[in-house]
Amino acid sequence: MPQNDLIEAGTVWLVGAGPGDPDLLTRKAERLIAAADIVFYDALVGPGVRELIPAYVEQVNVGKRSGRHSKDQRTINDLLLEAAQAGRKVVRLKGGDPSMFGRSTEEIAHLAAHGIPVRICPGVTAASAAVAGAGVSLTLRGQARSVRFLTAHVRGDEPLDLDWNALADQQSTLAIYMGREAAPQIARALIDHGMAADMPALIAVNVSLPGERYLFTRLDRMAQLVPVVSGDEPAVLLIGEAVRRCANQQSIENDIATPMASLMADIAAAR
Amino acid sequence: MPQNDLIEAGTVWLVGAGPGDPDLLTRKAERLIAAADIVFYDALVGPGVRELIPAYVEQVNVGKRSGRHSKDQRTINDLLLEAAQAGRKVVRLKGGDPSMFGRSTEEIAHLAAHGIPVRICPGVTAASAAVAGAGVSLTLRGQARSVRFLTAHVRGDEPLDLDWNALADQQSTLAIYMGREAAPQIARALIDHGMAADMPALIAVNVSLPGERYLFTRLDRMAQLVPVVSGDEPAVLLIGEAVRRCANQQSIENDIATPMASLMADIAAAR
Repeated sequence: MPQNDLIEAGTVWLVGAGPGDPDLLTRKAERLIAAADIVFYDALVGPGVRELIPAYVEQVNVGKRSGRHSKDQRTINDLLLEAAQAGRKVVRLKGGDPSMFGRSTEEIAHLAAHGIPVRICPGVTAASAAVAGAGVSLTLRGQARSVRFLTAHVRGDEPLDLDWNALADQQSTLAIYMGREAAPQIARALIDHGMAADMPALIAVNVSLPGERYLFTRLDRMAQLVPVVSGDEPAVLLIGEAVRRCANQQSIENDIATPMASLMADIAAAR
Repeated sequence: MPQNDLIEAGTVWLVGAGPGDPDLLTRKAERLIAAADIVFYDALVGPGVRELIPAYVEQVNVGKRSGRHSKDQRTINDLLLEAAQAGRKVVRLKGGDPSMFGRSTEEIAHLAAHGIPVRICPGVTAASAAVAGAGVSLTLRGQARSVRFLTAHVRGDEPLDLDWNALADQQSTLAIYMGREAAPQIARALIDHGMAADMPALIAVNVSLPGERYLFTRLDRMAQLVPVVSGDEPAVLLIGEAVRRCANQQSIENDIATPMASLMADIAAAR
């Protein structure tokens, strides 16, 4: 049943959908979706989450994926504005957390410039869900005292323009979104800038979605695992002491995940 | 009604409770809490979240707060182990996201060493909820390309041992947990290492809880706001271009939050 008071007419809510599993949506996000007239959703919003959108709510796919822009940011801004100006209750549903690489500020600025109120509902970001699924952590007392989130989206052969000296900090965990393609370059640059070649690394693929898998490896072998991840699969790279599995830690039972991960790690190690 | 199949007997789930508002709990966390026999919770788990724990579930407060350790980590590890070894369905409820400064690895390692299966449910971390509540972002395309999460918990006059050169990166947002006390030292060090004195800064207090407020300021004035935050109030410092409010952006209506924030910012600016 719609909760008509949760969203004011003519307001836009930017809502985090979390990593994909509908159970990783917040209670608030679930209620906002049900209180909306119209939901604009991303390519990174999983099908399970979309099933939570009630039938009486209009759904608009504004999905973008690297290389396959279905709608550009300007078009999305205009669609949100138009819906709000028509007095509708608007939810802009974004994969993960809207404040993390979600281009929220562009939407907020455009709407604010036209006097549209914008509110934000945070979500679980992919890196948090990745380490949770893999049974490890992002920080480690005394050893991984900070976490750095970045994206490594590059076009073609364009080099990554990053401060490798700062990134090679062995007391910090790196969580790299959209890092699949750049993984070989990242590993090489980090090692060249002093990070240990055997630093634990984890490629988390389809986190919390069907086809979820966690490829535990080490920095100097990370690149060898790239071919087992398809370009269509969302992947997060995690690098640092915090993603090392504890001794005796039981494998997470993620359907096909663990056998495949072990197999691929063995293949990679044998090369 | 308990969902008895969600947690296996003798298993420990580390569950993120989010920043405090029970609506920012994930759907999964809510269900895990209801499926538990016993829940061990932190000081940072808000009272609203605790109200979601059904009456048939035993609750144990293992809260720690800086300076007031009610139970040390070793005691918590032992309590979790004991409950799991007794075949109970155990939830360890942690404020925010368990992988972010939650000392999860210590609990996982202790339990794994005794053959206890551990699973993790991620949560919304305080910094994500802070920028959401304040209507800003953690990243900003082209300007704030990465985000760095760290803690600045110091005892007494102990100096903060941080890599200020790396932290003063103006293309990265800093999210500093437990940063209230160290705020003056942080601001001074960042400016000394080249960060612009007028870099936007935000002190987010009691994020998503009663008494929530968002103090928008700039780096060189951040220290002046510290006295308006009590040592008992959880606070996150956010520094960088991404936390600048857009022109025309409407104030967030957080009960007493905005008038107080404006007042305090004016006081600080006038000093």
